[in-house]
Amino acid sequence: MGTNLVNTVMRLGAHISDDDQGSVHSITLFISLLCACIVIGHLVEETRWINESVTALFMGLCAGGIILLTSKRKSSHILEFNEELFFIYLLPPIIFNAGFQVKKKQFFQNITIIMLFGAIGTLVSFCIISLGAKELFQKMDIGYLELRDYLAIGAIFSATDSVCTLQVLNQDETPMLYSLVFGESVVNDATSVVLFNAIQKVDLSNIDFKATLKLTGNFLYLFTASTLLGVLVGLLSAFIIKRIYFGRHSTDREIALMILLAYLSYMLAELFDLSGILTVFFCGIVMSHYTWHNVTTSSKLTTRHAFATLSFIAETFIFLYVGMDALDMEKWKLISDTPGSYVGVSVGLLGLVLVGRACFVFLLSLISNCTKQSKNDRISFKQQVVIWWAGLMRGAVSMALAYNQFTRFGHTQQPGNAIMITSTITIVLFSTVVFGLLTKPLVRCLLWSSFSSEASSVVLPLLSSAHLSDTVHEMGSGRIHRRPSFCMFLSQPTNIIHYYWRKFDDSCMRPVFGGRGYVSGDLASPKEDIVH
Amino acid sequence: MGTNLVNTVMRLGAHISDDDQGSVHSITLFISLLCACIVIGHLVEETRWINESVTALFMGLCAGGIILLTSKRKSSHILEFNEELFFIYLLPPIIFNAGFQVKKKQFFQNITIIMLFGAIGTLVSFCIISLGAKELFQKMDIGYLELRDYLAIGAIFSATDSVCTLQVLNQDETPMLYSLVFGESVVNDATSVVLFNAIQKVDLSNIDFKATLKLTGNFLYLFTASTLLGVLVGLLSAFIIKRIYFGRHSTDREIALMILLAYLSYMLAELFDLSGILTVFFCGIVMSHYTWHNVTTSSKLTTRHAFATLSFIAETFIFLYVGMDALDMEKWKLISDTPGSYVGVSVGLLGLVLVGRACFVFLLSLISNCTKQSKNDRISFKQQVVIWWAGLMRGAVSMALAYNQFTRFGHTQQPGNAIMITSTITIVLFSTVVFGLLTKPLVRCLLWSSFSSEASSVVLPLLSSAHLSDTVHEMGSGRIHRRPSFCMFLSQPTNIIHYYWRKFDDSCMRPVFGGRGYVSGDLASPKEDIVH
Repeated sequence: MGTNLVNTVMRLGAHISDDDQGSVHSITLFISLLCACIVIGHLVEETRWINESVTALFMGLCAGGIILLTSKRKSSHILEFNEELFFIYLLPPIIFNAGFQVKKKQFFQNITIIMLFGAIGTLVSFCIISLGAKELFQKMDIGYLELRDYLAIGAIFSATDSVCTLQVLNQDETPMLYSLVFGESVVNDATSVVLFNAIQKVDLSNIDFKATLKLTGNFLYLFTASTLLGVLVGLLSAFIIKRIYFGRHSTDREIALMILLAYLSYMLAELFDLSGILTVFFCGIVMSHYTWHNVTTSSKLTTRHAFATLSFIAETFIFLYVGMDALDMEKWKLISDTPGSYVGVSVGLLGLVLVGRACFVFLLSLISNCTKQSKNDRISFKQQVVIWWAGLMRGAVSMALAYNQFTRFGHTQQPGNAIMITSTITIVLFSTVVFGLLTKPLVRCLLWSSFSSEASSVVLPLLSSAHLSDTVHEMGSGRIHRRPSFCMFLSQPTNIIHYYWRKFDDSCMRPVFGGRGYVSGDLASPKEDIVH
Repeated sequence: MGTNLVNTVMRLGAHISDDDQGSVHSITLFISLLCACIVIGHLVEETRWINESVTALFMGLCAGGIILLTSKRKSSHILEFNEELFFIYLLPPIIFNAGFQVKKKQFFQNITIIMLFGAIGTLVSFCIISLGAKELFQKMDIGYLELRDYLAIGAIFSATDSVCTLQVLNQDETPMLYSLVFGESVVNDATSVVLFNAIQKVDLSNIDFKATLKLTGNFLYLFTASTLLGVLVGLLSAFIIKRIYFGRHSTDREIALMILLAYLSYMLAELFDLSGILTVFFCGIVMSHYTWHNVTTSSKLTTRHAFATLSFIAETFIFLYVGMDALDMEKWKLISDTPGSYVGVSVGLLGLVLVGRACFVFLLSLISNCTKQSKNDRISFKQQVVIWWAGLMRGAVSMALAYNQFTRFGHTQQPGNAIMITSTITIVLFSTVVFGLLTKPLVRCLLWSSFSSEASSVVLPLLSSAHLSDTVHEMGSGRIHRRPSFCMFLSQPTNIIHYYWRKFDDSCMRPVFGGRGYVSGDLASPKEDIVH
């Protein structure tokens, strides 16, 4: 009792108790590593081939190696891979920021093909990987896996990593490809949720028309509900800030409210078993379209950079962690008896990922191109190759799903599960490093001509005057209405929808939720009004 | 196995597992409450009597009441009071922001009296409360408490709450009082660490000269080391950003680096058993003096508002939590047998807090006034009353310490411990609400004349031109050197130190660490260059 009391007081003195001392150590190390990543990432940026995610991965590997040596091969990671950490704290800021800074015009122009790729494409990829894995692995000696395990493998390796996509594709250089591949990966998440729910709800031995219909309905419900929730929370934030803060702005409160409501949208979606990623993405879009224009100039600048910074820190953290976790001895020991199977499974899965994505990208592009009359709207073969390649990376989402499927209920010890975990790590590392490193050069090589034309179409001469009008005329004044001409109607049919949406937006939405003087659709996102 | 697997897949589908589902619920509720606090706090701000902390406390009480009713009197809080949450995540942003936005001239001009109040004052208060509690409680029937418990009580109730002080005193209205009371509460923390370490290291039955000397040395070490660590990390951030980012700024990286290094300073201090609060406070001061001037204009604005927002959210969170925790039935049930003792202890402790603070404030002010020759430098009686009153609030720090001392090792069940916990909650609530509500009117009443003169001395005519020169001449140009005249030497002796510091700063520090054109000491903090 005496010693205990002494200990209590001692710990109390240092403010943080023994239980927390471990977390102090790991947090300190992690933050030091994050700082190092930022500095080194900046220094090697000149080379243009290495992106920040690869730097973070390598830093994680190095740190993991050092920890492994100092802890006498006991462990290489200082934080357990934690789904809560990933899904509750790291993912929301990344996806919200993507929605907040996305070029809305590009995104909504490609919405049909994004939905096609995200929903149908993921399904195709899921089927190919599941079936392929079943065929391949049953021939190998990797222990017993259930049918559900194979289906899970299909879903795990169909999940395109949106974080990686954000890092390798540049929104300003290739806006169309960026919105397509990133938009696809967001829809992809909703599809995965439905797939996983379906795997256990539907009787696997008896899939009929009714079950398929139910599945489709489920997907539509999930997609609509998630989107609506995001839009509602976004509009709520716009309404509150417009009404309550009208006339007497308070920068810190505005920013706090925007951050908290964005996070609330994600948590509400998770609470209602919806897709948090979809919700927070659309919440970001609505906030950038309405809320962002109701706040003070200071708040505008602050939110834009603060959200980008949060997202940047979260991304670096994830890659650092994945790198650090890759050297975990416990997993590698389990597969040391069957190195052949491990290599076979990894190569096989990587091949399936490549084939699965190739199938749906080229197939769906073909279908999409058949429906398009104008040659400009079609997806060229070179673009198809880039889309296929840029979505090959598998990241932390795959890791989290694999951990969840193959390490629960103490059946980690089974060789089959250990092989699956190590193979997932290998594929994540390989795809991020190799595919990630090659994407930028590939984009430059293949799309040099189309990329420059695409970029020039975005840099409108209106940009500077639009920016000026944004800072001078606040609060909805200075709108420019342009009736679409007959020529425009014929040449660009998507503009009709855009015109009527703009009309509805001006007459119904803006009076209630605010927004800025509408000049051109693709100028209305926070990313583009940067004050240098 | 089958059902388990189904559950796994089911949970996997929703991305967040059962273990985390609880935290999703509580996080959602907490964020909703935070949003409500911000909106309601803004709406009731007009009244000027109710500050945001009181709003958050009441919101917490209401939410606690509702949870209590819906959970059938089982519990009123949704998150356990967690030291880690408080000391690792909530406190650092608040204290860092205070250092970052503090008016440095006022703070350093009052450094002697801040040290006197913070170190000697806390000791006096600690002795009075410990002795008083021992005398009082031994007459009451509240169960057995050890000598160490009484000493802990002294330390718990000597801890002035810096968060509350920040909320009730306004830096712009009463800069001198603000820097004095807030500075005192920061030094207070270092003193508490030494006191707690001392309580268990020194043999309590035999306190001699050597032990006292060791104690003093320990305090000096702790204070110096914590300050140095903060200054070093701050200078490191300035150096990195000046050297590496020179010529090619990256806003998001700059901001990320500043946030991470600030947090790193706190965690390093905790790792080395120093006072994290002191370290992060000085890190904030150094960052606002050097680092802040090396970054882009966007980063300047963003960091200023982002740090203020983080601090604001953390403060609101703490008060919300304290309010919610106050209705926890478990604690109140334990003292239901001895309500008399509980009331006695609470009133007794509150009286001791009042007396303890009164003793040292009036005594030390008397000593300080005796050494001052100029009448302007003396602390008037009215000011003494405000200093005494503004430091009476006890907040989350006291709560955390009380929980640590009286709920560990399963001896919560002892009536003495339960009474101490409930009394702490009562004092925290009472002091925050009553003293907090009365501070603003009191300051206005007592210091109306001196307050207006003080305020006018701060609003220098240089402000607007200084602001202009800050935005136009970046990177250390446009410095104005003024040699102190003989008259100035005679009238304001502190200016000599200020003059030589400025010289040293200009010749040695700025060339290495950056900083802006020096115009006047109190214009160099981020708070004052606000672009409206």
